[in-house]
Amino acid sequence: MDIKQPLLMHINNSVFLNDDVLVMIDRRYLPNKKIELLAANYEEVAQAIENMVVQGAGDIAITAGYGLYLAALEAERNTNYSIEEARALILTAKQRLVKTRPTGRHLAALLNKMVKNINWEKTRWSSQILQSINASIEKQQKRSELTGKWASELLCDGDSILTHCFPGAALLYMLVFAREQGKKVEVICTETRPYLQGARLTAWSVSELGIPVTLISDNMAAYCMNQGMISKVFAAADRIAMDGTVANKIGTFQLALAAQYHKLPFYILGYGGPDKNCRAGKDIVIEHRDPREVLSINGISISSENVKGFYPAFDLTRPELITGIITDRGIVPPSQVERYWDLPY
Amino acid sequence: MDIKQPLLMHINNSVFLNDDVLVMIDRRYLPNKKIELLAANYEEVAQAIENMVVQGAGDIAITAGYGLYLAALEAERNTNYSIEEARALILTAKQRLVKTRPTGRHLAALLNKMVKNINWEKTRWSSQILQSINASIEKQQKRSELTGKWASELLCDGDSILTHCFPGAALLYMLVFAREQGKKVEVICTETRPYLQGARLTAWSVSELGIPVTLISDNMAAYCMNQGMISKVFAAADRIAMDGTVANKIGTFQLALAAQYHKLPFYILGYGGPDKNCRAGKDIVIEHRDPREVLSINGISISSENVKGFYPAFDLTRPELITGIITDRGIVPPSQVERYWDLPY
Repeated sequence: MDIKQPLLMHINNSVFLNDDVLVMIDRRYLPNKKIELLAANYEEVAQAIENMVVQGAGDIAITAGYGLYLAALEAERNTNYSIEEARALILTAKQRLVKTRPTGRHLAALLNKMVKNINWEKTRWSSQILQSINASIEKQQKRSELTGKWASELLCDGDSILTHCFPGAALLYMLVFAREQGKKVEVICTETRPYLQGARLTAWSVSELGIPVTLISDNMAAYCMNQGMISKVFAAADRIAMDGTVANKIGTFQLALAAQYHKLPFYILGYGGPDKNCRAGKDIVIEHRDPREVLSINGISISSENVKGFYPAFDLTRPELITGIITDRGIVPPSQVERYWDLPY
Repeated sequence: MDIKQPLLMHINNSVFLNDDVLVMIDRRYLPNKKIELLAANYEEVAQAIENMVVQGAGDIAITAGYGLYLAALEAERNTNYSIEEARALILTAKQRLVKTRPTGRHLAALLNKMVKNINWEKTRWSSQILQSINASIEKQQKRSELTGKWASELLCDGDSILTHCFPGAALLYMLVFAREQGKKVEVICTETRPYLQGARLTAWSVSELGIPVTLISDNMAAYCMNQGMISKVFAAADRIAMDGTVANKIGTFQLALAAQYHKLPFYILGYGGPDKNCRAGKDIVIEHRDPREVLSINGISISSENVKGFYPAFDLTRPELITGIITDRGIVPPSQVERYWDLPY
């Protein structure tokens, strides 16, 4: 069977440079409209990230990396800049980009590493950053593939798995590997309000693989579990604390509670493992977005003007509720995430 | 403070006769558009019920009663009809109307009672039905008020209550009584996908009372509980089985699981109590609606054409998950719903 690779299986398909302008396929309109959003400087990249043009902790980090690249280009174009002035501009850009989304681990980690690795004496800072970006993309893609491979080992023929939000390329790799292993698997996606990433990104991407996929509203998951329609649950992680707490898209915690009640395995696609610098779940900053984003759909108000909105973009799931954290190096118990570094790579 | 009564606090405000045509304020467009939908015969009433122009087990039953009334008018207009022919027409209308929504208790119960009570020898069948309708409306309103009164006794000053879907007039009465008792209460409403009754009907109605109200997506409830933002949960019931299982809007079960985890009281506004003829939860027919209804919002597709939808409109919540069932006669433990009939009325 000849299946085209889903657009979202590789970040290069939706976030790429074209003549030193960053092109982003706007995920808020996928799959029904493919709108390219262009960013010519780091501020435009920052705003695109804030406005959810891209999503997913890893892809956000890479996109922000391109923002840093555009800042370096700007510094280079100002030929009268001293190294100190160029450095100040690039650091300002980094700070702006890091501030866009506080919850995910990768954004700050990647940008800090990139800036730290710049050799300021060599003037082609942008080339150095681009090299970092490309290395990161390659690493991230490999991680997705390895994570997906480990996850596929957990699947059984006939499984019906529930997903939340868009858990990234690892989910798609998992499904591809499971098929290669001769396992028939179906997918049920929560739509994931308010941004509908489950409906727009996950369900669509899975259907692109030719795998049967069903969409439900977020409030239907427990019913589906109760009806025996779900074998296992898979969600991603924007950050994993050292105590095994997982920050992920709002609604993950609620699904974990429903899975626990029904004694269903609840797995986290944990890609590159926990955040060494984050001791416990309570140290994770939960981003709260503009409450107006829950008060309308497609720009149409769904309530009255006297009603307030509340929009935590992420929640925390305690390790007791998680069956296993699937990483590129293997599957670790959530209560012992530090084992990640003992695993061979 | 002079607060106008919310439109949905009495069915007469949104479903009423005008020159023998039934006028329904279409709840799918509230609160931002007040569109009157007219029905001149029972088939049009049946379709309006199927299409969610009205909602809530009690209000659906009353609306269907008006459908029966229109069928009786039709029979009376055919002056050459024999009593048997008229009876056949009215029974056909009843069967059509009962079939519209299978899960709620009131619809079949009310229409069966109405038909049973018709004195066929008296020719003004429509007047007899109208009398029944008006008596039912009065009874339902009284039940809402009494249920709301009992519920208000459970509230404490400073409570923040979570609701799901639109739990009917009893919720609004509860809030009015609590205010009269000097208790300050806030409300958080789940939006209740896919039809958004929480956003459009509940949040709006509560705001009409001048009570602070916040809207969240369905997947945010557990997070809010975890943050200490919720004191108690209140949902309604479309049917209560004799084993204490409650059928209510899809998502109720998932909220009950989250409430149990957080040790929060989970109450059902049970109005007229359980259904004597329904032994156990498994005997309740769960309505499955057109899956396309979850695949689009405001007529705009939210996923890909290769994605299926799944739409159970209700779910079942086991008595172990319910703290108390609040009725017009008092509050009964869910495991002993039969006590309802021992309570003084």
